[in-house]
Amino acid sequence: MSLLVKGGTVVGPTGTQVADVLVEGERIVALLDPQYAGPVQADEVIDATGKYVVPGGIDAHTHMELPFGGTAASDTFDTGTRAAAFGGTTTIIDFAVQRTGEVVQDGLAAWHAKAEGNCHVDYAFHMILGGVDADALKAMDQLVADEGITSFKLFMAYPGVFYSDDGQILRAMQTARENGAMIMMHAENGIAIDVLVQQALARGETDPIHHGLTRPTALEAEATNRAIALAEVAQDCPLYIVHLSASQALEHVAAARDDGRNVFAETCPQYLYLTLEDQLGAPGFEGAKWVCSTPLRSKHESHARDLWKGLRSNDLAIVSTDHCPFCFKDQKELGRGDFSKIPNGIGGVEHRVDLVYQGVVDGQLSLERWVETIATTPARMFGLYPRKGVIQPGADGDLVVYNPNGTTRISAETHHMNLDHSAYEGFEVKGRVDTVISRGTVIVADGNYHGRKGHGRYLRRGLSSYLV
Amino acid sequence: MSLLVKGGTVVGPTGTQVADVLVEGERIVALLDPQYAGPVQADEVIDATGKYVVPGGIDAHTHMELPFGGTAASDTFDTGTRAAAFGGTTTIIDFAVQRTGEVVQDGLAAWHAKAEGNCHVDYAFHMILGGVDADALKAMDQLVADEGITSFKLFMAYPGVFYSDDGQILRAMQTARENGAMIMMHAENGIAIDVLVQQALARGETDPIHHGLTRPTALEAEATNRAIALAEVAQDCPLYIVHLSASQALEHVAAARDDGRNVFAETCPQYLYLTLEDQLGAPGFEGAKWVCSTPLRSKHESHARDLWKGLRSNDLAIVSTDHCPFCFKDQKELGRGDFSKIPNGIGGVEHRVDLVYQGVVDGQLSLERWVETIATTPARMFGLYPRKGVIQPGADGDLVVYNPNGTTRISAETHHMNLDHSAYEGFEVKGRVDTVISRGTVIVADGNYHGRKGHGRYLRRGLSSYLV
Amino acid sequence: MSLLVKGGTVVGPTGTQVADVLVEGERIVALLDPQYAGPVQADEVIDATGKYVVPGGIDAHTHMELPFGGTAASDTFDTGTRAAAFGGTTTIIDFAVQRTGEVVQDGLAAWHAKAEGNCHVDYAFHMILGGVDADALKAMDQLVADEGITSFKLFMAYPGVFYSDDGQILRAMQTARENGAMIMMHAENGIAIDVLVQQALARGETDPIHHGLTRPTALEAEATNRAIALAEVAQDCPLYIVHLSASQALEHVAAARDDGRNVFAETCPQYLYLTLEDQLGAPGFEGAKWVCSTPLRSKHESHARDLWKGLRSNDLAIVSTDHCPFCFKDQKELGRGDFSKIPNGIGGVEHRVDLVYQGVVDGQLSLERWVETIATTPARMFGLYPRKGVIQPGADGDLVVYNPNGTTRISAETHHMNLDHSAYEGFEVKGRVDTVISRGTVIVADGNYHGRKGHGRYLRRGLSSYLV
Amino acid sequence: MSLLVKGGTVVGPTGTQVADVLVEGERIVALLDPQYAGPVQADEVIDATGKYVVPGGIDAHTHMELPFGGTAASDTFDTGTRAAAFGGTTTIIDFAVQRTGEVVQDGLAAWHAKAEGNCHVDYAFHMILGGVDADALKAMDQLVADEGITSFKLFMAYPGVFYSDDGQILRAMQTARENGAMIMMHAENGIAIDVLVQQALARGETDPIHHGLTRPTALEAEATNRAIALAEVAQDCPLYIVHLSASQALEHVAAARDDGRNVFAETCPQYLYLTLEDQLGAPGFEGAKWVCSTPLRSKHESHARDLWKGLRSNDLAIVSTDHCPFCFKDQKELGRGDFSKIPNGIGGVEHRVDLVYQGVVDGQLSLERWVETIATTPARMFGLYPRKGVIQPGADGDLVVYNPNGTTRISAETHHMNLDHSAYEGFEVKGRVDTVISRGTVIVADGNYHGRKGHGRYLRRGLSSYLV
Ligand SMILES: [Zn+2]
Ligand SMILES: [Zn+2]
Ligand SMILES: [Zn+2]
Ligand SMILES: [Zn+2]
Ligand SMILES: [Zn+2]
Ligand SMILES: [Zn+2]
Ligand SMILES: [Zn+2]
Ligand SMILES: [Zn+2]
Repeated sequence: MSLLVKGGTVVGPTGTQVADVLVEGERIVALLDPQYAGPVQADEVIDATGKYVVPGGIDAHTHMELPFGGTAASDTFDTGTRAAAFGGTTTIIDFAVQRTGEVVQDGLAAWHAKAEGNCHVDYAFHMILGGVDADALKAMDQLVADEGITSFKLFMAYPGVFYSDDGQILRAMQTARENGAMIMMHAENGIAIDVLVQQALARGETDPIHHGLTRPTALEAEATNRAIALAEVAQDCPLYIVHLSASQALEHVAAARDDGRNVFAETCPQYLYLTLEDQLGAPGFEGAKWVCSTPLRSKHESHARDLWKGLRSNDLAIVSTDHCPFCFKDQKELGRGDFSKIPNGIGGVEHRVDLVYQGVVDGQLSLERWVETIATTPARMFGLYPRKGVIQPGADGDLVVYNPNGTTRISAETHHMNLDHSAYEGFEVKGRVDTVISRGTVIVADGNYHGRKGHGRYLRRGLSSYLV
Repeated sequence: MSLLVKGGTVVGPTGTQVADVLVEGERIVALLDPQYAGPVQADEVIDATGKYVVPGGIDAHTHMELPFGGTAASDTFDTGTRAAAFGGTTTIIDFAVQRTGEVVQDGLAAWHAKAEGNCHVDYAFHMILGGVDADALKAMDQLVADEGITSFKLFMAYPGVFYSDDGQILRAMQTARENGAMIMMHAENGIAIDVLVQQALARGETDPIHHGLTRPTALEAEATNRAIALAEVAQDCPLYIVHLSASQALEHVAAARDDGRNVFAETCPQYLYLTLEDQLGAPGFEGAKWVCSTPLRSKHESHARDLWKGLRSNDLAIVSTDHCPFCFKDQKELGRGDFSKIPNGIGGVEHRVDLVYQGVVDGQLSLERWVETIATTPARMFGLYPRKGVIQPGADGDLVVYNPNGTTRISAETHHMNLDHSAYEGFEVKGRVDTVISRGTVIVADGNYHGRKGHGRYLRRGLSSYLV
Repeated sequence: MSLLVKGGTVVGPTGTQVADVLVEGERIVALLDPQYAGPVQADEVIDATGKYVVPGGIDAHTHMELPFGGTAASDTFDTGTRAAAFGGTTTIIDFAVQRTGEVVQDGLAAWHAKAEGNCHVDYAFHMILGGVDADALKAMDQLVADEGITSFKLFMAYPGVFYSDDGQILRAMQTARENGAMIMMHAENGIAIDVLVQQALARGETDPIHHGLTRPTALEAEATNRAIALAEVAQDCPLYIVHLSASQALEHVAAARDDGRNVFAETCPQYLYLTLEDQLGAPGFEGAKWVCSTPLRSKHESHARDLWKGLRSNDLAIVSTDHCPFCFKDQKELGRGDFSKIPNGIGGVEHRVDLVYQGVVDGQLSLERWVETIATTPARMFGLYPRKGVIQPGADGDLVVYNPNGTTRISAETHHMNLDHSAYEGFEVKGRVDTVISRGTVIVADGNYHGRKGHGRYLRRGLSSYLV
Repeated sequence: MSLLVKGGTVVGPTGTQVADVLVEGERIVALLDPQYAGPVQADEVIDATGKYVVPGGIDAHTHMELPFGGTAASDTFDTGTRAAAFGGTTTIIDFAVQRTGEVVQDGLAAWHAKAEGNCHVDYAFHMILGGVDADALKAMDQLVADEGITSFKLFMAYPGVFYSDDGQILRAMQTARENGAMIMMHAENGIAIDVLVQQALARGETDPIHHGLTRPTALEAEATNRAIALAEVAQDCPLYIVHLSASQALEHVAAARDDGRNVFAETCPQYLYLTLEDQLGAPGFEGAKWVCSTPLRSKHESHARDLWKGLRSNDLAIVSTDHCPFCFKDQKELGRGDFSKIPNGIGGVEHRVDLVYQGVVDGQLSLERWVETIATTPARMFGLYPRKGVIQPGADGDLVVYNPNGTTRISAETHHMNLDHSAYEGFEVKGRVDTVISRGTVIVADGNYHGRKGHGRYLRRGLSSYLV
C-alpha cells in the first residue's frame, strides 16, 4: 500500500519546499522533486497543491482519564486521541501516574491498561513520580532501560499527592543524569501557595478567580529558578519546565539557556490566548472552566506577549496542551463555594495545531517555528525522532495536509473532545486541518473520520536527542 | 561625670571631621569645633589627636553559649562580650533560640537568664524561630510590642531543629510585614544539602573539606532567591540575609535591591579572608576549625573580591561575625570521622573592627563605609539608632578611639575569647583599637581592661529605620 | 556674631535627631543636646521646634545666563541665585562654558565675570569642554590644580557646538583619571538624534512634542552605556551622568554600580513629575515651555517610577535642576514652526528642595535620602564636603529650617526666577522653606528676603570624596 | 547526468538519517530510503556508507584580493575558491567594497570583474558601504532589487576608509528596514581605538601584541551594544554582527535575542582556537601572522568557552572565516616596527568545516549545530535558502561526504590557499573532507582536485529567511 502526497509545500524546521512525499506502508520512503516525481506510482494520491504538508502534530502533555479529587478527566484515550486526530495531532505523550505511596510500575501498568487498544493515534508515556524513594529511583532506571519511558515528571506542588521535596527532586535528577532521562517539572511553590489558598478561603474568597490570585507569578518564577538550581547541582541534569505561564519564569529559563544549560520549557495555548481577568474571572462560577495550574495570568502584564517572544527565540521549545478536560456540569461544579475543589484542567488537545498556526497568521511565529513547536521539537526532546516529527525517508508516515486558506471555528457544539464546554468557545482562527495521515493511513479527510480505535500504537521512546 | 574626647578625627558615614566629643554621664551631649571647644570643661579628657574617633562597633550576629550537638559555644556572655570590648565592639545582638517544638518566650527567657548581669557591653537579642506555628506567630507580635525584639531569624536548613518550610516562612514574613519586624534568613537549601551530605558520608568522604563541598554555592544562591521571592509574596516584607558568602547569592540580593526592594545582607570576615582550600581544606582534621555554615568558598572563584565590592556598593550592608566559637579540643573533635558532626562556627567577635579596617588599608573600602558596615548600619537596620551607631548629641557615649598607625596581631595566645585556637592565627593587620568607651565609661585603654561584668545592659530595640 | 538654631529636628544622612546648632560667624561650631545647650548664649536664636533643620541645598547643575541660539538663559547670577535662596538652595554649581574652538580659560574667565559680585549664595563652577584638544587637556590639569574646578562636562550631542567624539572623550577621561577630576556626561547619541530631527522636520513635524519623539530613550541608554564603557577603558575614570531621564539608561548605571564602578548619575525634578504627553505634548506651541534635553519621557512607560526607585537605591545619587530658563515670549517662541530652534531648558532652581520633599510626603523617599540627594551627596560628589552639605562643627553655617506642615504653591506669579511661566504652574506641594541661612546669615525668613547680591562667594572645590 | 550518494548518514539541522541522495544535473531531485532506493539508477554512484553527507559549506565572510594598505589579500578568487573547495566549502559570500568617496556600483563592478570566470565554487557578494550618503542609500535599494545583493556591511572603525558615523549607520539601517536587507556590522569603537593605538605607538609599543591590547573587549562590547540600539531606533532593522570575539559582546547579542530582536552574530575559527598570548603574542614579529580585527582575545578570560556556548545556544548563528590572507613575507612584514601597519587578516577558508567539526569531536557542538553553523544558517540568513544549505529535492547538488574517522593535518606545506604560513600550523583535527560535490559535479575526491576555474557561478541572493 503506497500513498503519494503531491504538490504540497513541505514545511520543515528550516524552511519550505514544494515536494512530493511518498509513503510505503507505514513509513515515508522518499521526498521527491515534483517534476522528477512524475513517473512515481502510488496506490493513493493526495493532491496537496497550495497547501502545507507538515509532520503529524505531537502533543507532549496530555492527561487522559486522569483521576482528580474523586472524578477523572472526561476524555478517555479513545475520545481524546480521536479528538487529537481531528486536530492534526498524530502522537500524544500522556502522563502515567504514581501517586505518593504507590509503586511506579503499578502506575505504569494501570496506564497501559487504560490506553491499550483504545487509541486512535500513536501514544507514549511520561511517568509522574509522586513519591521519590529508593524503589522509585530504581524504577526510573528500569523504565528507561525496558519500557521506553525516558522522562519523569516531578511536582513542586500538591503535598501528599504528587509533591517531592528538594531532596527527592535532587535524587531523581541525579538518577536521571546517570540514565539519561529528562526531568519534567511542575514548577510552582505549592507549599507557599497552600498557605495563600487557606488564607483566601478563610477570608471567604471562594470564587474561581482566587485560584489564580493565590498562585502568584513570583511563586512560579521561584520554583522555576529552584528547579534550575537543583538541576545544576545534579551536574546539569536535563530539565524541562512544563506549562510555563509567567514572564518571570521565562526569564529564569532564558538565563539558564544563555548560560548553555540543558534547560527547556513548554507553554500551552491557554497562556497564549486566555487571561486571569477575561476567562478565570468570568462572572459567578463561570470562571471554573479555566481553572488550571499554573493559572491564567493577568492581561495587565505582558505574559502572552513574552511567551510568543519565547517561542520565537526558542527559550520556549514546545507548545503542548496539558489537556485535562473536566466537564462543567458535575465536575467543575464540585468546586462551587471553594475554588480549591475545582478539578484543575483545560481541554485543548484538538486545537493546538490551529491555535499555534494562528500565531503564524498574526506574525508572532514563522511557519518553521510552528512546525518545530508542535511536532519536530517534541519528537527530538522526548526521544521519538527521527521516527516522528520530521518528513524524511525512514520516518513514520504521519502527515498533516494543512489548508492556510481554511478557517477553524472552535465550539463545544462541534468539537470532538468529550467535554461540555470549550475553553476557546467562539474562537475563529485562520487555517484548517485538511487531511491527517497516521502511519500511512488517512484517518481524517475533509472533516470526516476514517480512523479507528486501536490503530494507535504504544511508542517506546529513546533518550532525548535535543541536549546541548 | 563628663568625658571629652579631644582632637580626634570623627569618622561619620559621609566623611571625616576633626571635632571634639563631649559625653555627660552616659550620653553624648555635644560635638564641638576644637577651637570653640577650648573653654569646655570635662572631668576626663582623652587626647585623640591623629586618631579616628568612631561609634562603638555593633556586632549584629553572635551566638554566645549556643548549644550545638551536645556541646555549646565556648564563649559565655561574660567572656564573649569582654572579648568584644577589646575589639572595639560595644554592642552585640545575640540570637535567642526557639528550637522546633519549644515555646518562643521560654527560649527568650533562657537567653535573658544567660546574659543578665554577665555582659561587659550592651546587648540585644534577635529571636530564632525554629518552629513557626500559630503560637510562634503570636509570640512575634508580643516580642515586637513588649520585649524590644524586632527581628526574627528563620532557617532554610537544619530540618527538625531550626528548619522552616516555605509555608512557615511565608506566614512569618506576613506577620513581620504587619508588625514591622525584620526577617533574617539563613539561606541555604538544607533539604538538598542533607542529601549531598549523606551521599558524601556514604562514599567515605568524611574530612572537614566535605562540609564545604556538600554545600555548593548554587544552593546558597537558590535559597537566597527563594527567600527574596517569598518576601515579595509577603508584600515586600523586609528581609535580611545573614552570613552571605557566595557571589551568586550576592547577585540575587543586588538584583532585588536594584528593584527597590527591602532586601539586605551581611557578610562576615571569614568570607572576606579565608577560603575552602586554604583553611577548610587544611591537612588532616585541622580544617575543622573553619567549619561554619555557610561554608568558606573556593579561592579559585571570585567570592571575596565580589563581597568587598558588595560592601562598597551597599549590596552588602553590614559585616557581622556570626561569632560561634568551639574549641578544637573536645568540641570540634566531636566530628572526627564525620564532618557533619563538627560543631559549626567560627569565633571572631574580637577581630571584626580590625579585619574590616584592613579593607580600608587595602583600598577595598572607604573609612566611611568601614564605620557604616561595623556600626552605623547595624544600628539603623536593627532599631538601635540614634542611640547607637552614630556620634551626635543624644546618642549613647559608645566610642572607639582607633589608631591607624597601630598594628594588630591575631593569635590564640593573645586573644580574649574563650577559644583554644584562632581562625585568623598569625594575621597581622594595620590599625589598632586604642580606647573603648561604653556609655561614657572607658572600658579598654592601651590594651588594658577597665570594664566590668554587668556593665552591659539589655537594649530594647525599635523597628528598623533602614527601610526604603 | 553667633546664631543658635534651637529645638529643631536635624536631618542627617542616617537619621534624625533633635539638636541645637550653634553658628559662630560663618561656621557651625557645635551640635548640642538641647538640654545641655540650655546655658549656651547666642546673639540670635531661631526656634526650630517642630521643624526640620537641614543643610543648605546644593544645586549641582545650573546654567545662569547660558547663551543658546542667539538668546541667553533668562536668569542672571543675580536673579537666579536669589531665587535659589528662596527655595532653600545655598550653593549652586554652574557650568562655565568652552565652546568648540574657544580657549578653556577664556570661557572660565567669562563665567567668573558674570558671577562675581552678583551672587546671593555661594557658587562654584563645573567646566564644559566643547572642544577637547591638547590645550584643553592641559587646561583640565590647570583648573584642577589652580582654580578649584574638578569636574568637566562633555557632550555626546550637539556637534559643532559642544560635541566630543569618542576619542576626545577617551582622552579627557584619561586626563581626569590622572588628575582626579570627575567627568560629567550629557549622554545622548546626538549624531543619530540629528538624523531623526532632520527627518521629522522634513516630514513637517515641527511641534514641540517632536523634540521628545526624536530623542528616543534607546539613544539616551546607548550613550550612557558608551560613556560607561569609555570610562572603563580609561581605567575606571569617575563618571557622572547628568539629567538622566530614561529607565533604560538607569539600568546601565545600575549595572555598572553593581559592578563596583565609579559611575554616578543625577536626575532632575522635571523627569520625576512631568511627561512627554501631558507637558511637552500640550496643545499648539504651549509644549515649548518643556523643551529640554534629555526630553520629558512618556507617561505610558515607567520612567518616573523607576527614577524614584533609583533615588531610593542610590543608583541615582543627586537631584539637580539643570536650571536653564527661557521665557516663553521672545525666547521659546524662536522655535515656532521648528522645534529644533526652541531654546532648550527648564527653570527650576527655586523648587528643587520642595519637589524632592514631596517625594518624602508621597512615600517615595526617606527624609535621609531627601537630605542626601539635595545637599550631602552633591557636596561629597563635587568636592565641597565637609564645608557644605552637612551639619557638623567646621561646616559652613548653611542651614534651612523646613516646615513639614507648610504648603508651597508654585506659580509664575509668585516665583522669584526671571521667567514668565513656570514648568510646575499650579503645583501645590506639602512642606515649605521657613528660614534660610547662608554662612551664618539669615537670608530668607518667613518668605521675606534678607540677603544681598554679592554675599555669595566663589567656592574652590576639591576632588570628589564620593569615589568607591 | 545523475549522481547517487548512497548509504550515507545525512545530517540535517534536526538530526541524522541514513538516506540516499539523488542528484539530476545540478539539483537534488530525491531523498530516498536506502531500501526503497535500491532500484534507482544513476550515472555515478558514490558510496557514503559510514560517512556523513552534509550540505556543501557556505563561508559567509571572505575577502578575496582585498586591497589593504598598498597590498592585497593574497588569495585571488581562483586560488581562494579552489582552497575553499578542498575544505568542503562550495559557496562563498565575499565582500565587494565601496570605500569612502567611491561609487557603490563601481565597487560592485570591480568585484564582479575580479570574480567572474575565476571561481571554482559558487559565489555571492555582500556590499561594504564605506561612505553612506544619499547616493549610497539609493544604491542599496538598487542592489537589493536588481543585483541579488541583500546585505550591507558597515564599519564602526577605520575612519576615512570604511567608517560610518552613527547618523550614517542609522540612515543605512532605516533604508535596510524598508528594503528588507540585512545590515552587517564591524562592531569596534574605532574612534576610541585609534586613540589607544596612537598612544601605544607613542610609548614605543610597536609589537604585534599591541594590536590586540589597543582593541580592548570593552570597545567591541560597546560598539555591539550601540549597533543593537541603532537597529532598534531603525524600527528593528535586521542586524548581523560579524567576527564577534569577546564574551561581553556576546552578552549584548544574547540580551537582544532574549528580547526577541532580529539580532544575529557570527564568530570565526580563530576566536575559537587562538589567543592573544599564544599566537598574537608570539615572540618577535611572529605574532603578525595573527593580526586581525577584532583581535584574538586573552586566554585568561573565558572567551573561547563562551563562544562555543553561544554556538550551542544559537546566540552565535554562524561560523565564517573572515578569510583575508596576507603572506608573512612582504605583506605582514610591512608592519615591522609599527603594528598598526600590519595588514589585518587571517587565512582560513580551507579549514572552517574541519575546525568546527572538531567542536563536535570535543563535545562542544552537536552534529546538527555543525551543519547549521557552517551551511544551513548561512543559507537562510543570507537569502540562499532553499537553493543552498539543505539536502532536499530542489536544492542545488552541493554535497560534502565527510569521514568522521579521517584526520586532517593543517600546514602551510599542504594547504591550497596562496599563503606562506598557516594560522593553524601543526593542528591535527579529527574528521576529513572525503568528497565534495558542487552543483552535481564531483570537484574534490580523496584529496584530488577535479574541479575547474569558472565552474563557480554568481548567486543572486534573496532576502533573509531567518528573521523572527
Ligand atoms: Zn503540572
Ligand atoms: Zn499536566
Ligand atoms: Zn545595585
Ligand atoms: Zn549564626
Ligand atoms: Zn546636558
Ligand atoms: Zn545642563
Ligand atoms: Zn537567549
Ligand atoms: Zn571581514
